[in-house]
Amino acid sequence: MAELKNDRFLRALLRQPVDRTPVWMMRQAGRYLPEYRASRARAGDFMALCSNPELACEVTLQPLERYPLDAAILFSDILTIPDAMGLGLYFETGEGPCFRKTVRSAADVEALEVVNTAEQLSYVTDAVATIRRELNGRVPLIGFSGSPWTLATYMVEGGSSRDFRRTKQMLYNQPEVMELLLTKLADSVIDYLNAQIRAGAQAVQIFDTWGGALSAAAYQRFSLAPMKRIVDGLIKEHDGRKVPAILFTKGGGQWLETMAESGADCLGLDWTTDIGQARGRVGHRVALQGNMDPAVLYSDPARIREEVATILASYGEGSGHIFNLGHGITPEVDPASAGAFINAVVELSPQYHPSNS
Amino acid sequence: MAELKNDRFLRALLRQPVDRTPVWMMRQAGRYLPEYRASRARAGDFMALCSNPELACEVTLQPLERYPLDAAILFSDILTIPDAMGLGLYFETGEGPCFRKTVRSAADVEALEVVNTAEQLSYVTDAVATIRRELNGRVPLIGFSGSPWTLATYMVEGGSSRDFRRTKQMLYNQPEVMELLLTKLADSVIDYLNAQIRAGAQAVQIFDTWGGALSAAAYQRFSLAPMKRIVDGLIKEHDGRKVPAILFTKGGGQWLETMAESGADCLGLDWTTDIGQARGRVGHRVALQGNMDPAVLYSDPARIREEVATILASYGEGSGHIFNLGHGITPEVDPASAGAFINAVVELSPQYHPSNS
Repeated sequence: MAELKNDRFLRALLRQPVDRTPVWMMRQAGRYLPEYRASRARAGDFMALCSNPELACEVTLQPLERYPLDAAILFSDILTIPDAMGLGLYFETGEGPCFRKTVRSAADVEALEVVNTAEQLSYVTDAVATIRRELNGRVPLIGFSGSPWTLATYMVEGGSSRDFRRTKQMLYNQPEVMELLLTKLADSVIDYLNAQIRAGAQAVQIFDTWGGALSAAAYQRFSLAPMKRIVDGLIKEHDGRKVPAILFTKGGGQWLETMAESGADCLGLDWTTDIGQARGRVGHRVALQGNMDPAVLYSDPARIREEVATILASYGEGSGHIFNLGHGITPEVDPASAGAFINAVVELSPQYHPSNS
Repeated sequence: MAELKNDRFLRALLRQPVDRTPVWMMRQAGRYLPEYRASRARAGDFMALCSNPELACEVTLQPLERYPLDAAILFSDILTIPDAMGLGLYFETGEGPCFRKTVRSAADVEALEVVNTAEQLSYVTDAVATIRRELNGRVPLIGFSGSPWTLATYMVEGGSSRDFRRTKQMLYNQPEVMELLLTKLADSVIDYLNAQIRAGAQAVQIFDTWGGALSAAAYQRFSLAPMKRIVDGLIKEHDGRKVPAILFTKGGGQWLETMAESGADCLGLDWTTDIGQARGRVGHRVALQGNMDPAVLYSDPARIREEVATILASYGEGSGHIFNLGHGITPEVDPASAGAFINAVVELSPQYHPSNS
């Protein structure tokens, strides 16, 4: 493997000194980029794009051609694991992801088998290896997975949901069935992320998109506990380097203290949390990633720069901050606005790392 | 006016001793009740139900016939104010509320006039007076309004939204235009709630359904500040009795400390906040209302009772807790499950008020 030329992101995840705050964007390879839309049109559909390592590599690298980003993230979908479990993932226009089969009874849960990535999801590890080769040490590559709770919501509901009625019905009425489902998913995610690490992922992120829909107590048991199981099961070092793990619970701002005890190296923050306050609460234990409201990218470059400056000042001096949006970049954003955002981080952040300038 | 026979709700809002924890449910007059669906079918559509004082009174009283609730809440819609401002509210099946006109430019905002409730929304105050008369002192009546920020999102987007793109574009790019809109809305809400109080509302609640979509800083300026303006402008006492004000920001659990400084008497909590921790943070300044996950009502009576017991124990001994759901009851809930919830509060809560048994 080529030597890593830019390790700013990995160093910040471990709260080691950096020359400036590293930056990447959730969903940076996405529909806001015309070159992405062209690749997707060529692929036919979204899953064709995910399941073809060459195409997945192509779109992963696209944002790096435009912007001075400090990390690449594997292009894939969070629902590859339930698909590999046999639920039959497909995408309905305007509806988002759907499954042909659902998981609603104890028997359904018992019938599920933990995923074997090498056998069932080799297209993902092939994509990781391809991207690592093509990156050629430019920036580190992030692998990722959905969280067990987030995956479970899609599996039980059969797709997206507003109120997670059936999933919560299982959670409240049959908590032991829900725990069995979550344990099978956690073990699948461990296998999946470790396979990504062995294939070349240099950090991993767990996306807990729907953890914030849970009550405070239910979050601890049904979302955080399975994520902690994953963190415990992850390969800690690979190829002579620590592999940091990032936990991102959207809407999890009230629970950062317990998230910081999970063993993860970094917590992702959405934009509802003040990052300076978050640092005060947990920053001596973990790095923090985030957290500009993606909707700021609908405003003009001066306003975007102002918001970046506010967040940098709120975090303050020193390492441990990875700049990102508080959620994925949205399809309607002008690529020039994303550029204004990233340039603002590059230009304004060195002053917060004075001993390394 | 008839003497109030059950003032448990009003006493708890002011943290005065009570014999048991009072309980009501957001959206308690709603689609989960067959008698509500029958009234609505007779009315023709939702706005016909809201704008007819006799029908609004009929559905307001329906849940009180079934359950030992400690408060009634005016049956109305949160979007009556923008409708009175001339935007033309209508309901599209499956789409929720829509406006024929939107408010997107500085000129649009400048053209808006503060609502005069007596002239433009007398159907609401007529409903309040009718309900007070029919309640005949049984329980107190809650008046309500949407928060300025929440109303603004519908006015700018023209209906419901996922990411509030246009509203946030105005907020970030033209903050002074957004503030003018919010000030006009706050002044309209003051007039509206004071008219409800004069007509007989004995407490008022401000529903900030979408405040939780804002960043920590934007929430303070664009949602909480206009709500504080409202609280400052409300009639504090009517008919010899204090009129308590309740602030409910869904997703506002991180901001309770500043909400408690708004002058409101009570904060509504959604289910993501641990109510015991919330009490520790702010309970010496305000009462707390909430906060069971409405999805618990999809589980069986024993499980519902268990969840009620957990929340009562978390709040602990003493007054200042009004039991409620963390958001509105959903249409698919079995009315018997709502009954199990309310009965559990009635039966399990007296032990937390020992000096008043």
